[in-house]
Amino acid sequence: MQLTAPLDMHLHLRDGEMLQNIAKASAQTFSGAIIMPNLVPPVSTKEEVIAYKERILAAIGDEKFTPYMTLFFKPSYDKAFLESVRDDITAIKLYPAGITTNSEGGVSGFDVEELRPTLEAMSELNIPLCIHGETNGFVMDREAEFVSIYERLATAFPNLKIIMEHITTKESVAALDKYENLYATITLHHLLITLDDVAGGMLKPHLFCKPIAKRPEDKEALLKVVLEAHPKVMFGSDSAPHPREAKEACGCAAGVFTAPIVLQVLAELFENEDAPLENLQAFISGNAQNIYNVAPLAKTVTLEKKPFTVPSDYNGVVPMYADEEIAYSIKEITYG
Amino acid sequence: MQLTAPLDMHLHLRDGEMLQNIAKASAQTFSGAIIMPNLVPPVSTKEEVIAYKERILAAIGDEKFTPYMTLFFKPSYDKAFLESVRDDITAIKLYPAGITTNSEGGVSGFDVEELRPTLEAMSELNIPLCIHGETNGFVMDREAEFVSIYERLATAFPNLKIIMEHITTKESVAALDKYENLYATITLHHLLITLDDVAGGMLKPHLFCKPIAKRPEDKEALLKVVLEAHPKVMFGSDSAPHPREAKEACGCAAGVFTAPIVLQVLAELFENEDAPLENLQAFISGNAQNIYNVAPLAKTVTLEKKPFTVPSDYNGVVPMYADEEIAYSIKEITYG
Repeated sequence: MQLTAPLDMHLHLRDGEMLQNIAKASAQTFSGAIIMPNLVPPVSTKEEVIAYKERILAAIGDEKFTPYMTLFFKPSYDKAFLESVRDDITAIKLYPAGITTNSEGGVSGFDVEELRPTLEAMSELNIPLCIHGETNGFVMDREAEFVSIYERLATAFPNLKIIMEHITTKESVAALDKYENLYATITLHHLLITLDDVAGGMLKPHLFCKPIAKRPEDKEALLKVVLEAHPKVMFGSDSAPHPREAKEACGCAAGVFTAPIVLQVLAELFENEDAPLENLQAFISGNAQNIYNVAPLAKTVTLEKKPFTVPSDYNGVVPMYADEEIAYSIKEITYG
Repeated sequence: MQLTAPLDMHLHLRDGEMLQNIAKASAQTFSGAIIMPNLVPPVSTKEEVIAYKERILAAIGDEKFTPYMTLFFKPSYDKAFLESVRDDITAIKLYPAGITTNSEGGVSGFDVEELRPTLEAMSELNIPLCIHGETNGFVMDREAEFVSIYERLATAFPNLKIIMEHITTKESVAALDKYENLYATITLHHLLITLDDVAGGMLKPHLFCKPIAKRPEDKEALLKVVLEAHPKVMFGSDSAPHPREAKEACGCAAGVFTAPIVLQVLAELFENEDAPLENLQAFISGNAQNIYNVAPLAKTVTLEKKPFTVPSDYNGVVPMYADEEIAYSIKEITYG
């Protein structure tokens, strides 16, 4: 089985030592990835984007991989600033304030008029807006409650490409087909788990993430659009490393680290569900190329059906399926 | 503020070293408690009941406290056996198989005819049936799905007192008033937390329990019947100690340890909600005396509004509100 130019349209590479420890796990198998800007402090100037990109390129060494950079959305961004940074970024990521790791400086309230100058400038410059769509409501309702905000923004800014990031609910899936300018990324783990896997038996901190895994019918709705390769749906891992100590602590941090096993597990999932390989190719690359208008560097990943035991950790970060056997292995990666 | 003869109608005292470590936390402040039988192996013979009671009495030493013993329900219990053990037990506890800690030997399916001989004998001998009411469905639906089984049993055995243990949903609250022979216990923690507290921010293993904390509207339904002292509702802590290592592990065990702080926090809750002290007295003792027809030994607990910092742990078991300050303290305990 071969996949060409895999793209991860939602990735956390962090910074400093963690960046050194985990960047290659994505860079080896993916042609590129949309890099989240929620560092401390968040990436919000041209200089910070350029410097962060350089640190990423240094961390991946000889790997052939394109980091598609993003800014951390601020309502203060004006058109002149956005023009100045247009060539350095692929998208801008909006976080509601305080909703996830390092999102304290995000947006509160979603006043269309307050956001209009920035979002109209983004429309004109064709900069997609990626949104972590959760309210601060009850944990199982946060994303469904946010759909009305997606709808308000999609209506007010019809020429703005809005990416609903890491969607987890049937309500978000339904919104995709109602508004021409709404798109979505979907993670690997939300195709595989529900809240039952996190808290139905023993409590599993390594499967705890935001948005939290939802109900079985939500997982089914996500699987349906992924397996049929809905053209508005892209793969975005939201692979989010934390040190083992932060995951197995009394107040466990949110995030699942999937980068090293994404392609193998997606191959198995599509096989188990009898979905065509071309749909996996569209989900993992083709749709994203169309939506973002990017031309990723040529990389071909050959997978083979051969059991692979997932390591206990990658430099101190515990991956999904740690110590378990998965059905597919990566056989070869070729370029050009 | 004085409470007389507090009763905990659902308590896990465990066995061995853990029993030694935590028994006094309940025995000091409560007049008595219904003791859960889910040891390994479960308490299911007359000899095991008597021996476990002796171990509990040895562990509490000089404290004045009545352990109301229970058997682990088995459909093989016949009338002759139940008659032989009638004076040694206060109730029988039924676990669906595999639903919580040490419940592997529980009931699968709920075939009324299969259960009829045992449940009719219990009716005749006036032995209440306590049930952990959860199906093996999706974690947020398990209790609501079980309500139809409560209804089936309540209808088939109209003279059997059925206690819905540690209810957590508005559906169970609604069932209380529909069937004369359905009663309920409610924990402290389910009056205080929802799933948001467990998994809405960081993941909190010490608040992870079964049944899992539910939605805000469920908590409101529980609070309503507790604060009004609904006559079919009793306090049952489900205080369930695990060693710190088992709670802060990669697959965290289910259970909240509340025994040492129950009365203080209930006092604060009733005060904050402007509910009358007599209702707290009914919830913590009077209703249980009526439902179970027990006459607990005289013990009066005097509480005072004086901040109390909850210890980090009790012999290695982390209590709810560990290291936090609560508003009430226990001032004095008197007898007779």
